[in-house]
Amino acid sequence: MADYNARLTALRARMKASGTDLVAVGPSSHMLWLSGVSPHGDERPVMQIVSADHAAFLMPKLNADAARKDTDLPFYAWSDDEGPVKALDDLLVAFGVKQKAGLKVALDETMRADFALFLLGALDQPRHAFTGETVAALRARKDADEYRLLKANALLNDEAAKAAFASLEEGVTELDVAEVVKNFYRARGAAAEFTIVGFGENGAFPHHHCSTRKLKRGDAVLVDIGGRSQGYPSDMTRMGYFGSAPEGLEEVHGIVDRAVKAAIAAARPGVTARTVDAAARDVITAAGYGEFFLHRTGHGLGIDIHEGPYITATSDVVLEEGNVFSIEPGIYLKGRFGLRLEEVVILKADGAEVLSDLPRDLFRMG
Amino acid sequence: MADYNARLTALRARMKASGTDLVAVGPSSHMLWLSGVSPHGDERPVMQIVSADHAAFLMPKLNADAARKDTDLPFYAWSDDEGPVKALDDLLVAFGVKQKAGLKVALDETMRADFALFLLGALDQPRHAFTGETVAALRARKDADEYRLLKANALLNDEAAKAAFASLEEGVTELDVAEVVKNFYRARGAAAEFTIVGFGENGAFPHHHCSTRKLKRGDAVLVDIGGRSQGYPSDMTRMGYFGSAPEGLEEVHGIVDRAVKAAIAAARPGVTARTVDAAARDVITAAGYGEFFLHRTGHGLGIDIHEGPYITATSDVVLEEGNVFSIEPGIYLKGRFGLRLEEVVILKADGAEVLSDLPRDLFRMG
Repeated sequence: MADYNARLTALRARMKASGTDLVAVGPSSHMLWLSGVSPHGDERPVMQIVSADHAAFLMPKLNADAARKDTDLPFYAWSDDEGPVKALDDLLVAFGVKQKAGLKVALDETMRADFALFLLGALDQPRHAFTGETVAALRARKDADEYRLLKANALLNDEAAKAAFASLEEGVTELDVAEVVKNFYRARGAAAEFTIVGFGENGAFPHHHCSTRKLKRGDAVLVDIGGRSQGYPSDMTRMGYFGSAPEGLEEVHGIVDRAVKAAIAAARPGVTARTVDAAARDVITAAGYGEFFLHRTGHGLGIDIHEGPYITATSDVVLEEGNVFSIEPGIYLKGRFGLRLEEVVILKADGAEVLSDLPRDLFRMG
Repeated sequence: MADYNARLTALRARMKASGTDLVAVGPSSHMLWLSGVSPHGDERPVMQIVSADHAAFLMPKLNADAARKDTDLPFYAWSDDEGPVKALDDLLVAFGVKQKAGLKVALDETMRADFALFLLGALDQPRHAFTGETVAALRARKDADEYRLLKANALLNDEAAKAAFASLEEGVTELDVAEVVKNFYRARGAAAEFTIVGFGENGAFPHHHCSTRKLKRGDAVLVDIGGRSQGYPSDMTRMGYFGSAPEGLEEVHGIVDRAVKAAIAAARPGVTARTVDAAARDVITAAGYGEFFLHRTGHGLGIDIHEGPYITATSDVVLEEGNVFSIEPGIYLKGRFGLRLEEVVILKADGAEVLSDLPRDLFRMG
């Protein structure tokens, strides 16, 4: 079990350093990371609020008993009859912030709009920020336990990807292959987080939804899958083809693989996220495919499948030891195929370590 | 398929009536209802924005192709490299609202806080509201197709509840029974939306998470389940016991059943939501159990399992023909059992019609 007191202490240090007066997180992975509490999330306002010397929950009475087993922090509970206005005011008065003007409030960026505006509306001319300097910055530096879980999940995902490619035969659908992956996870105590299987031209949509498209000879096959186990996800993309390789697939595979290698080589503590993005992008651009690389190079991975640091062409975020993120350049050729290769890495003091052990070679099936 | 042009026209009438200048919905059931578009939802800002004479999407380029098949409305697309600032500005300029001060903006209350504050920050002194007067008000009046889907789902859920109670035997766990329900839905082309199974004292937590608690003789059994099919959910709670009834269960069942009947009798177009809540609450209070009825009487049900109208003790919302909502009073006796009975009703001109056909009698098993 995580040390939530230590996390709260670390958060207060980040708050002080960033001039943040209040942090407010909703029923989200931020709350789960910070306090181990994962309340029922619906339209009833629930949030954890932290200041330099207070921490408490605004909590619907309905969920108070269930949440109480996970935390000893004070609850400001409200019933459906009363509504949440008085409970939030009581909390803000107890924190000594109700009458202070111009406080800097770091909001959980994933919180419902009505929760966030309810809190801001209860304060006097607040300045809002999101959690990039506070909770998200802390979450981006994985500890040893988190590394162990992410690594174990990545190795499980290697096997899931092999099972997906092994299931390819003429006439199977993308949904069939996704089902193979889901069953693979389930049999090992994990759960599918997402399954993108793209045959042929469907691979050219980066966020393709699996369909009843049937596999035929000459199709490229994109498998981008992730499973969740013990609270942490995996995420990996591998490519293959069925029967024969479509024209250009092997050339494009070589380019994207070089882009992955370049980004891995560039990734180390102290460099900016844009440096890593550029390393991958430059390879693809130099090969003449720059316009077909439609997205950023990667995203952080932790409790959330997408979290900081984001590896984009414009991010000046400085990467730190313990950051875990994907490196997943791709080339999308509409009507033909899309080719993406994705690794998840953790930054050690001397560079990036890839979590997966599965080679990025094309799977040649059929 | 729904008539999205008609929905847009109806929305503009509501906007005019409520003095709303802009409506902005995120990648949510509001967007799905309004336009049939259900884009990949992540940290990339995506929203549909509507004014009196414009409608368009702010859309990540990454998802534009996949979303394009569902709508002909203009896209203001942005790439990971560019970020969303310019695309949103272009949209607001095209709408003629960029320089107007004090516009009233109805925000999707479920939208991420960062999306909502991004939009508000791009406008000049906007006044914000949520969708209660506009999109949510329209969604609360179900049309004939929606009624048909909700009714069919409710009848399927009757069978799922019977299967749950039929599976009770000594030593089964709450999770086992939940699995029976999930498999039941799956075998009929539906998917579990949620499954609350509470044995004995666990039923006293209104939002109990299923556990490995084993069934034993003398336990009360609470089954609150819902499945989703063709885009719409069901939601129903029934009670039973295993072996013998715990002390007080039958008395409390009689009280809660009378509360349900009273609320159904009170529900009709033109009355306030609080009137319906009071009808149920008064029965329970008169019987001496008022303090153990921990929550509101009900919630609307549509694409979302929780949506307007909410049936609370303080809501002055006037109920309308076509509203669909739950009536689910309960009495929670900590350490002993919780007893809730839940029906979903639709308001016809002359009163409430219950969607389920399953009696509310106690299931006597074992």
